[in-house]
Amino acid sequence: MSGVWGNNIKLSIFGESHGRAVGITIDGLPAGIELDLEYIESEMRRRAPGRNALSTQRQEKDSFEILSGFFNGRTTGTPICAVIWNSDQHSKDYSELKDLMRPGHGDYTGKVKYKGFNDYRGGGHFSARVTAPFVFAGAIAKQILRDKGIVVGAHIKAVGNIQEENFDSVNLSEDLLKELVKKEFPVIDDNKGTEMQNLIIQAKDELDSVGGIVETAVLNLPVGIGSPFFDSVESCLAHLLFSIPAVKGVEFGAGFDISKMRGSEANDEYYMDGDRVKTYTNNNGGILGGITSGMPMIFRTAFKPTASIARPQRTINITEGKEAELEIKGRHDPCIVHRAVPVVEAAAALTILDLMYNN
Amino acid sequence: MSGVWGNNIKLSIFGESHGRAVGITIDGLPAGIELDLEYIESEMRRRAPGRNALSTQRQEKDSFEILSGFFNGRTTGTPICAVIWNSDQHSKDYSELKDLMRPGHGDYTGKVKYKGFNDYRGGGHFSARVTAPFVFAGAIAKQILRDKGIVVGAHIKAVGNIQEENFDSVNLSEDLLKELVKKEFPVIDDNKGTEMQNLIIQAKDELDSVGGIVETAVLNLPVGIGSPFFDSVESCLAHLLFSIPAVKGVEFGAGFDISKMRGSEANDEYYMDGDRVKTYTNNNGGILGGITSGMPMIFRTAFKPTASIARPQRTINITEGKEAELEIKGRHDPCIVHRAVPVVEAAAALTILDLMYNN
Amino acid sequence: MSGVWGNNIKLSIFGESHGRAVGITIDGLPAGIELDLEYIESEMRRRAPGRNALSTQRQEKDSFEILSGFFNGRTTGTPICAVIWNSDQHSKDYSELKDLMRPGHGDYTGKVKYKGFNDYRGGGHFSARVTAPFVFAGAIAKQILRDKGIVVGAHIKAVGNIQEENFDSVNLSEDLLKELVKKEFPVIDDNKGTEMQNLIIQAKDELDSVGGIVETAVLNLPVGIGSPFFDSVESCLAHLLFSIPAVKGVEFGAGFDISKMRGSEANDEYYMDGDRVKTYTNNNGGILGGITSGMPMIFRTAFKPTASIARPQRTINITEGKEAELEIKGRHDPCIVHRAVPVVEAAAALTILDLMYNN
Amino acid sequence: MSGVWGNNIKLSIFGESHGRAVGITIDGLPAGIELDLEYIESEMRRRAPGRNALSTQRQEKDSFEILSGFFNGRTTGTPICAVIWNSDQHSKDYSELKDLMRPGHGDYTGKVKYKGFNDYRGGGHFSARVTAPFVFAGAIAKQILRDKGIVVGAHIKAVGNIQEENFDSVNLSEDLLKELVKKEFPVIDDNKGTEMQNLIIQAKDELDSVGGIVETAVLNLPVGIGSPFFDSVESCLAHLLFSIPAVKGVEFGAGFDISKMRGSEANDEYYMDGDRVKTYTNNNGGILGGITSGMPMIFRTAFKPTASIARPQRTINITEGKEAELEIKGRHDPCIVHRAVPVVEAAAALTILDLMYNN
Repeated sequence: MSGVWGNNIKLSIFGESHGRAVGITIDGLPAGIELDLEYIESEMRRRAPGRNALSTQRQEKDSFEILSGFFNGRTTGTPICAVIWNSDQHSKDYSELKDLMRPGHGDYTGKVKYKGFNDYRGGGHFSARVTAPFVFAGAIAKQILRDKGIVVGAHIKAVGNIQEENFDSVNLSEDLLKELVKKEFPVIDDNKGTEMQNLIIQAKDELDSVGGIVETAVLNLPVGIGSPFFDSVESCLAHLLFSIPAVKGVEFGAGFDISKMRGSEANDEYYMDGDRVKTYTNNNGGILGGITSGMPMIFRTAFKPTASIARPQRTINITEGKEAELEIKGRHDPCIVHRAVPVVEAAAALTILDLMYNN
Repeated sequence: MSGVWGNNIKLSIFGESHGRAVGITIDGLPAGIELDLEYIESEMRRRAPGRNALSTQRQEKDSFEILSGFFNGRTTGTPICAVIWNSDQHSKDYSELKDLMRPGHGDYTGKVKYKGFNDYRGGGHFSARVTAPFVFAGAIAKQILRDKGIVVGAHIKAVGNIQEENFDSVNLSEDLLKELVKKEFPVIDDNKGTEMQNLIIQAKDELDSVGGIVETAVLNLPVGIGSPFFDSVESCLAHLLFSIPAVKGVEFGAGFDISKMRGSEANDEYYMDGDRVKTYTNNNGGILGGITSGMPMIFRTAFKPTASIARPQRTINITEGKEAELEIKGRHDPCIVHRAVPVVEAAAALTILDLMYNN
Repeated sequence: MSGVWGNNIKLSIFGESHGRAVGITIDGLPAGIELDLEYIESEMRRRAPGRNALSTQRQEKDSFEILSGFFNGRTTGTPICAVIWNSDQHSKDYSELKDLMRPGHGDYTGKVKYKGFNDYRGGGHFSARVTAPFVFAGAIAKQILRDKGIVVGAHIKAVGNIQEENFDSVNLSEDLLKELVKKEFPVIDDNKGTEMQNLIIQAKDELDSVGGIVETAVLNLPVGIGSPFFDSVESCLAHLLFSIPAVKGVEFGAGFDISKMRGSEANDEYYMDGDRVKTYTNNNGGILGGITSGMPMIFRTAFKPTASIARPQRTINITEGKEAELEIKGRHDPCIVHRAVPVVEAAAALTILDLMYNN
Repeated sequence: MSGVWGNNIKLSIFGESHGRAVGITIDGLPAGIELDLEYIESEMRRRAPGRNALSTQRQEKDSFEILSGFFNGRTTGTPICAVIWNSDQHSKDYSELKDLMRPGHGDYTGKVKYKGFNDYRGGGHFSARVTAPFVFAGAIAKQILRDKGIVVGAHIKAVGNIQEENFDSVNLSEDLLKELVKKEFPVIDDNKGTEMQNLIIQAKDELDSVGGIVETAVLNLPVGIGSPFFDSVESCLAHLLFSIPAVKGVEFGAGFDISKMRGSEANDEYYMDGDRVKTYTNNNGGILGGITSGMPMIFRTAFKPTASIARPQRTINITEGKEAELEIKGRHDPCIVHRAVPVVEAAAALTILDLMYNN
């Protein structure tokens, strides 16, 4: 079992890549929220495939249909279910995947777990397509947070070996986050962005793929969200982030690098900025003792390169129990990092919203 | 709210550093398990303070008392509650902590969250002492897994800038893990271990502290544990790990480095080893699609340097709303990484056990 | 928040009476179960309106569409979402319900809870129509239990003052339960059934409604399902039953009458039937200490008369804050007890299945 | 698994009748609540045994020790664990219970569920003694509700066949509830109370036991607590009530009798009392659509007669698989209804508090 998440808002996710639809039910949202449908659509587009040479050519409009919990333009307070119908499916491309396990995918582990009954077409429930309804839910969460003055934003920190600088964790501006969300390829330094995109194209030309890192920030959080045990902000957010396909690492603030610091360097010393408590540095990424400190919340999420590559790969035929060679056909992203940005933002917004509703 | 975790086994944790006791209730364990009390005690000792110059001199024996769920040497199937009484408390050392917020600790965020009513002595519920009952629970989980042939082990991958090699993620031997658990300072390369310990002593002498990285492995896991959404092995394990005080990063398999690889390099290609499915590499750390693959499960956990250092630090007096200087008194660890090893192992064992009991 | 239930299987329910659809997501079902679609449809028909003079004339076919988790005729092990589209809606009938609160319904309490943003048409999410997807889920649960030899069945114990005998709680036969499920109006004594139906027609003619009692049994349960605290079989089942609209009472075994017995009478004494443990009586309804005893599980559920009646009623205009008179238009059931039978059975089957999957 | 309950406050209960202690951890209470320890003690005394001839002579003071979450007289906001040490145990009285299954108890079902490893002494975790920590938690909940003006109270509606009148569900006064709580044997009509007590003594003299019904009311609840699906007030409260040992029936408002009414009678018509919405009748017991209506919340809980009686009973020797005769020794209550009153009130208060903290 896996498809339900949350304490105060609950998500129930469903769907397979080549089934009838993917969708989500969101329970626990307040009544009376006027949903900004255009905004939700724009968030869906940020994740949608087929926009340019950097992404798969699968042409899904990713338009959602709300089935419940929405009346006269507003939330009713009862569960909202939204579905995204599947349409542009080339299921035949996947017929051999019944037997040949794609390296780096959940084909083999899913086959064993579900005793061979999982829907293998396009990865089924393991497909990144399941993140589409998750982005729908995240867009609503971001809208609610926005109305409270809380801003969520992210940039592509790295694609392969090409990195740009981290966010300024102390003086990060809302304006920067708002600019980033408008960019099709959200980086702080567009020159670096061009390099990253070139690397993606190059990998594609070489029938290969690349990974990367998304760095995310949340600004204007109140102090006091989260808990020491077991629902630290880091715990709850990492839980959601590691549900996103291809994520293999999550770090907060200085992250792994903080392990190399001395305490005297890592500790974020306090000062008063008028009557607000601030820290000179922000190595803890805005979270202390599992609880928000009021400083910018910062975290990084590592994505592996897309597992689907066109090169021949050594694998097994699970039905025959023999080794085999696989050439994956179909349309695939040479990199999913840029499409993952709104997914990561959704995880941040949903986690924060769920924790904010704690008594 | 924060103190409850789990689906099939549920942990409920409680206690403050300088209160009456810390403890845990474990619900959902099978009936009839003969608890290996000596083993549990030995695990508690691995975490206990006061053993050597590397740790705080607080002398807590960390002996537990089981209050329920245990009869005639075996689990009854009903909830097990165990407490660890607090004894060697120097609460006076902490009297000024009511006002002066220690940098790097949860003092300030806890103060705001709990409106000033939290038990500030020794960090209260934010204290790493709360991990003692967690290790108790983890020891039981490890014992149950051990009886199923599953082995959990860890080494100190890094202290500050001093690193040793990662585990061999493909051919990791049980023997190595079993050796590590016997070491007071568990490293693969004892020369590196000596360097690390020297660095800790040096930091202590400089009234400072150091952080580090723990790398953990789980061997002999069956294929098929975990779920794609939202309870991937990574999700559930990261959730627990990020509850451990001082953890700021978690990565699986190649982790952040996988983001620099090409897909053709990152993908773990399959082969048959007799009738067992294996992969030539293990960049995914034994988890694919959120589900165990049967390869060694590998993850790394980054710890920040101990926040309590004896050097003067800039802080605020929260009561007066003014800036202040703080010199932390009391007994503190110059490094908590070696004491954290059984805590991380406990998180791994409890997560795996909880997921294994899924229908 | 309310729409999620369960531990080992999780239900997430959504939808409004006059919205786009009602539906449910079921998470945690085993993979590979060949769904008996005809059986599920037949269960849906048992609940569906418009079949005869005893029910509302709303003509909903209640046919379901499975959106996920179902592939090649079998469950995949990932969440199953099913929707039942709304079609035959006379929303105009309900326009005055925006202001006039129907006595006995959730109109007023929902209005306050959801700050006036709930979908009031046909009761919205409070409508008994939401039980349609619940019956879908229950039919799957019953199918799985059936394959384990476990039989769920029910009869209409009472309509208004007309009662028939209780089940024989000691020697209840499977055959009787199987016969009952085939009846459009499931009673043991068809003469009593005729009286009940006449009473319903009479109430309808008088622009009024009647309530009743459903008695349900589950046979062939293994011993050992359920827990003492807090998940007794009674606890978990009552939780679901009291979610069904119009339920105001639940009792197990001898129920309220057991409070009048002496211990020497109420205690079910044991004997050996070959190597099976049985009791001479079954006042505890097959549950002792919250756990199934292997004797027939028996419980009764009290339904209030349909709140929607055509007679003029005194109420308030919530918008104006004034008293008013209401004549409810639209099509309504003079009695919902017979349509509730499969809903109650669904609650029993889902509870048992969820508890059976406990580790 | 069973020992954890709640969404916004979580209870984790543990302990066995003749083990080291029984206890509870309460998570999610607000910080800064000044606990009224005298009040909590007085509530514990209401449940405690050994007070008079009506109860078992086991002399447990039921004094609690708070281990965590309590500092300077106030809640800290972190989990509160309290234990009640076991002392006056006559475990030898129970030695034969290892083999002989007491009719009406959970001995047999627990034996099977826990594979013979349960602590059988005094019923172990099945003992009503486990309700002592539950009353501790309930007393805190009642104190918090009291500070919000919400009053919980109950009377013994029936012992055996002797009944007194129900509460006036429309005009129930706070004063009556406050008087009842002061009575050792809480009834509205003390003459009826004397009859009930005589019946209890008579049953005791006949080596037998009697059951009864507790009727409970909650006054001054805000409108809007609870949810339609799946967390109606009735659902959540019944869940807790059916965890209390010996409860076999729960009904709200007119309860089972509402099934005999016509809709025109059962529907509670509305009127305006100044600017407050009220109903002329209260057959729904203050709950409509699963949500509080602002009218008095009323429910009744049926208790079976104490299962432990001194008379010889037919049973089985589970070890030998043979029929046997049992004469239960030890000290037992001829009736537990009066001692159950604070337990039922605790269930009401905890349910209401948990639901009130919903976002």
